[in-house]
Amino acid sequence: MEFNKRYEIYLDYINEALEKILVVRDVPEKTCYEAMKYSLMAGGKRIRPVLSLVVCDLFGKEFKEVIAYACAIEMIHTYSLIHDDLPSMDNDDYRRGRLTNHKVYGEGLAVLAGDALLNYAFEVMIEDALKSADNIVSKVKAMQYIAKASGTTGMIGGQVVDLQSEGKKVSLETLTYMHKCKTGAMIKAPIVSSAIICGADETQVSRLSIFAEKIGLAFQIKDDILDIEGDLSTLGKNSGSDVSNDKTTYITAYGLDGAKKILDEVTKEGISALESFGVEADFLKNMALYIAKRNN
Amino acid sequence: MEFNKRYEIYLDYINEALEKILVVRDVPEKTCYEAMKYSLMAGGKRIRPVLSLVVCDLFGKEFKEVIAYACAIEMIHTYSLIHDDLPSMDNDDYRRGRLTNHKVYGEGLAVLAGDALLNYAFEVMIEDALKSADNIVSKVKAMQYIAKASGTTGMIGGQVVDLQSEGKKVSLETLTYMHKCKTGAMIKAPIVSSAIICGADETQVSRLSIFAEKIGLAFQIKDDILDIEGDLSTLGKNSGSDVSNDKTTYITAYGLDGAKKILDEVTKEGISALESFGVEADFLKNMALYIAKRNN
Repeated sequence: MEFNKRYEIYLDYINEALEKILVVRDVPEKTCYEAMKYSLMAGGKRIRPVLSLVVCDLFGKEFKEVIAYACAIEMIHTYSLIHDDLPSMDNDDYRRGRLTNHKVYGEGLAVLAGDALLNYAFEVMIEDALKSADNIVSKVKAMQYIAKASGTTGMIGGQVVDLQSEGKKVSLETLTYMHKCKTGAMIKAPIVSSAIICGADETQVSRLSIFAEKIGLAFQIKDDILDIEGDLSTLGKNSGSDVSNDKTTYITAYGLDGAKKILDEVTKEGISALESFGVEADFLKNMALYIAKRNN
Repeated sequence: MEFNKRYEIYLDYINEALEKILVVRDVPEKTCYEAMKYSLMAGGKRIRPVLSLVVCDLFGKEFKEVIAYACAIEMIHTYSLIHDDLPSMDNDDYRRGRLTNHKVYGEGLAVLAGDALLNYAFEVMIEDALKSADNIVSKVKAMQYIAKASGTTGMIGGQVVDLQSEGKKVSLETLTYMHKCKTGAMIKAPIVSSAIICGADETQVSRLSIFAEKIGLAFQIKDDILDIEGDLSTLGKNSGSDVSNDKTTYITAYGLDGAKKILDEVTKEGISALESFGVEADFLKNMALYIAKRNN
């Protein structure tokens, strides 16, 4: 099956699951559900939960084993975008071609809708873990992996460094550290958590981890490139915002051509890490190319 | 042992555990840990985690069984205060006699420190659950109870209703609903989650739930009374902020005397719910009186 067709199958499965999980309830706090849903269902490539399902397929398990964790990761990713867009952070008006959450619902509700998505992500994972009597330990371990990836030792830590770096010339070391935490951890989380749930052995987890780290880095470099080369119509947000915010990026550090060369290299290194999985991992390898070649 | 002395023992145990759990790490995102710690270690009565330990004592179990959940609840409570104090929410400059988190660390970092505390609360509970092989199901059930209490069906839902009610005359029904979610759920959470971990039976959980609901309501009514009668030196924040924000409270609804009468009634109802526990529940009963009589 060609890549796009199979990607669509993953995507449809995820969007359907997210629709089912997050229902707008007719209660006094209804607007909170609407604000959560506004950002969660804003479309997007769903790269993180797709990675969960691809890894699940690699181990020949059913999607229902990992879907709660895939959805939770997408909810955590979405909440981080809502908070990141706030006036006190990146102050962005557009995201995925639509007004950002606080531009529609106001700043106070955007803070709460973000909080609610993070909290709900754990509710969804916990509910699934309690339903899996015979596999509860693996499920709680997967939850732990995701929680560490989204916390101070991962995504939030990276965002703090990002916030502190604005308007400053930061070192390459800091830049790499920030990317590894801010973006890398939540690209690695679906891959490793899925592997844990599906019973991967240590060697398999270790190889998948290397792959995940490489494509996480590729993802961030590509983001920096798109911020220069992209435009509002394909990107869904204003390009050049990194430049106007005077941020250090892979482009300011290595130049546009240098960044593209590094992107190629890390993508190849990621793919090599999967050799021992054979043809079964072809789709996962293609995910690396997809991340490097995407135009939004 | 007199009440204050025993309360001190609980308090010391909790403060020591919180100090151990949240260590400021020497990493680029160090400021995030500092901001988390600034609010988490700002003192306070620690009513919620104390309730966890009191219930644990009631069932004759060791504190180490429930301390992770007690600390998690305090972290969730603290993050909610940080976000609640933000300019886009209640816009408060003081909390517990000190500048609010965003006044010290800036708004962006205050949002992230709040997010980090919520995330870390789950990390702490998950780590404990994985260490308790023989009791993992009860621990994950306790975690689920706490997650639901802090999410859209609990605390966050209540905060959304609160935010939407500002400057409006809301109905008594809405007021009660809001308090039940915003404050009540997180007073009930330590009591019920502790009972679940300690192996309470259904009747016991049900009686403790009634007690918890009553003291949760009492807590909120007392808060409203203190907002009128308290002052900065004992309260640690500016009193009268509800009035100046034109909020509906138990005072605007029932008058000061009416609110005091309701406070007495619900406190008595809470205490009655514990009759079947006998003298073992005396300290828990005294907690109800403590909540009703506190002056900050």
